[in-house]
Amino acid sequence: MQVIIRKATIEDAPQMLELIKELALFEEEPDEVEITAKELEADGFGTSPAFTCFVAENNNSIVGMALVYYRYSTWKGKVIHLEDLIVKQDSRGMGIGTLLLDKVIKFSSNLGVKRISWEVLDWNEPAIDFYEKKGARIMRDWDVVQLDEKGIKNYLSRIN
Amino acid sequence: MQVIIRKATIEDAPQMLELIKELALFEEEPDEVEITAKELEADGFGTSPAFTCFVAENNNSIVGMALVYYRYSTWKGKVIHLEDLIVKQDSRGMGIGTLLLDKVIKFSSNLGVKRISWEVLDWNEPAIDFYEKKGARIMRDWDVVQLDEKGIKNYLSRIN
Repeated sequence: MQVIIRKATIEDAPQMLELIKELALFEEEPDEVEITAKELEADGFGTSPAFTCFVAENNNSIVGMALVYYRYSTWKGKVIHLEDLIVKQDSRGMGIGTLLLDKVIKFSSNLGVKRISWEVLDWNEPAIDFYEKKGARIMRDWDVVQLDEKGIKNYLSRIN
Repeated sequence: MQVIIRKATIEDAPQMLELIKELALFEEEPDEVEITAKELEADGFGTSPAFTCFVAENNNSIVGMALVYYRYSTWKGKVIHLEDLIVKQDSRGMGIGTLLLDKVIKFSSNLGVKRISWEVLDWNEPAIDFYEKKGARIMRDWDVVQLDEKGIKNYLSRIN
């Protein structure tokens, strides 16, 4: 095995989308993926990219990815958020997730940020175990809140 | 009462910092606020701002704020994150939080995003109740994960 971790290029977008769909299936939300490869291309690889993506390549095939972007903490300033860390099912147990996370930590450290955050499903014990071993803190008292497209529409209809 | 909701200007940074510190105290983490007014000024009001802030002004004094920025969902594309929604303790119960949230929802809708997200402490029942009444979904199975400055340093010392 000769895994290479490198920055994603626009040509990787279709394979990134495959990984994104595989993760959504694991998270039991396969129908929630509305994004297209074209949108990933436009959003991530133009003049003002909305994210930075690293991919793990093995035998000319993308087997994993880590997608990050800036967030803003009113306590710490600019911080990095890891939106997705994905390793293909058939490529797990080979340390690829660690290689990708290593890359994200180095990248973030070079930017000088004081925090890296991400989110995890509280029933995903293998992931939680992996993150805790890496020194991350699972903040079980902080919940994610979302207002989705329908929620936004309903909200506006009530106030207008 | 004549509350005005408007976009924050660079002159508001010191009063924004006061609100940020008040919220950190409520969240039992007063020592975690490392940011300065100077940094807020540089990060939020330059040529490439890291956030957009709306403030609630009452009698020429800032009594609340909502700070938002773009995130990137690999399911929905560009989305808006509400980092802080703060109303000064002595100005609560007057609907200022609702006015600020209304502004955030309208702003996000104008940008065409499909999701607005934020985070809430699971013991902050008044906030959870407020958000649920607004139609938001509290995703109690999603936890926040963080690697802080010390964690980043420790991580790097192990892999280098």
